[in-house]
Amino acid sequence: MLGQYKLTIDTTARGTTDITAEVAGKVRASGLDRGIAQLFVQHTSCSLLLTENADPDVRRDLEMLFRRLAPDGDPAYRHDTEGADDMAAHARALLAGCSLSVPVAGGSLLLGTWQGIYLWEHRTGAHRRNVVVTLLGEGR
Amino acid sequence: MLGQYKLTIDTTARGTTDITAEVAGKVRASGLDRGIAQLFVQHTSCSLLLTENADPDVRRDLEMLFRRLAPDGDPAYRHDTEGADDMAAHARALLAGCSLSVPVAGGSLLLGTWQGIYLWEHRTGAHRRNVVVTLLGEGR
Amino acid sequence: MLGQYKLTIDTTARGTTDITAEVAGKVRASGLDRGIAQLFVQHTSCSLLLTENADPDVRRDLEMLFRRLAPDGDPAYRHDTEGADDMAAHARALLAGCSLSVPVAGGSLLLGTWQGIYLWEHRTGAHRRNVVVTLLGEGR
Repeated sequence: MLGQYKLTIDTTARGTTDITAEVAGKVRASGLDRGIAQLFVQHTSCSLLLTENADPDVRRDLEMLFRRLAPDGDPAYRHDTEGADDMAAHARALLAGCSLSVPVAGGSLLLGTWQGIYLWEHRTGAHRRNVVVTLLGEGR
Repeated sequence: MLGQYKLTIDTTARGTTDITAEVAGKVRASGLDRGIAQLFVQHTSCSLLLTENADPDVRRDLEMLFRRLAPDGDPAYRHDTEGADDMAAHARALLAGCSLSVPVAGGSLLLGTWQGIYLWEHRTGAHRRNVVVTLLGEGR
Repeated sequence: MLGQYKLTIDTTARGTTDITAEVAGKVRASGLDRGIAQLFVQHTSCSLLLTENADPDVRRDLEMLFRRLAPDGDPAYRHDTEGADDMAAHARALLAGCSLSVPVAGGSLLLGTWQGIYLWEHRTGAHRRNVVVTLLGEGR
């Protein structure tokens, strides 16, 4: 069976939005029993992040590291059309990735106990973001 | 339905080659209507990159950042069999990734307006690169 | 057809474990002829790594680079509940990734000559790690 859905997430600023429950809801709605959930962001300045969901300091520390690896307003950037966070956002999107596949069994995402799925906004302003969820495998 | 194709890309030097049209062509040829296109490079010194396709400076700036994160000829490298770019290329391949999945609907790649798919050559010399495209889902 | 398996890997310390043969064994056992093998770690402090399998110095050099990019015990980390390697492990897991898809044809993984699949333990101590292998495509 195959199901395909679009999630729309309105971000307010740079940072993470937990979308685990929304993705799990689409798996349930689709009737998928066993297979994979493939997630994809249709943008080049935000990411899908799979990380620890218990301590919010983990995501704060990831932001801190990304400020080092892909600084805003780096003087070596040529692409700065939309401001100091523009090129940094593209670089962060490359490092964290725009697609993610999660296995499904018994109609549920096979996540580990501490794994959460996040949309990671890399721009400093608010944006409307699309996540395409494609579900492939055996139905219930 | 399932389709599987190999793209062969001859690179000339470090840098990116837009393969979006070739991948889209394989989706059309396969008859896939809805599902996913899974791309995979059979190499450990080049990557698949999904990034902005409008301003070439974005890809130039990503190269600049990768020169910092994985420098050529770093004195701390032990692996340098094939030259100063050898280990740097493996490190870049790790950071940018070798596999990528893109959703398909209505027989087309569900890319955002500004998303392009690139083969990113990390070696400084010319190489022949294989990309395996696997298409899974419902046919037309 | 669809097959789903769990690999359990007992790591002893930070470093890589070659799991290529175990993944290939599951592909054979499943009867998959053509399609994809989707791999997923159910943890946020280890990764799946696809890299050169010939010279072990490649993996040693990747460890060296990751020590720079995500240092243990960085004074800027707030999350350090489980020790100096705790936050570094989450950051490494983000950079190297937790999911990987490899194409399959003729019942075999379509890996390049020098590609190996590794579980990369990012914690300094021993851990039991689960890798979910989902196989999708056409059976033999």
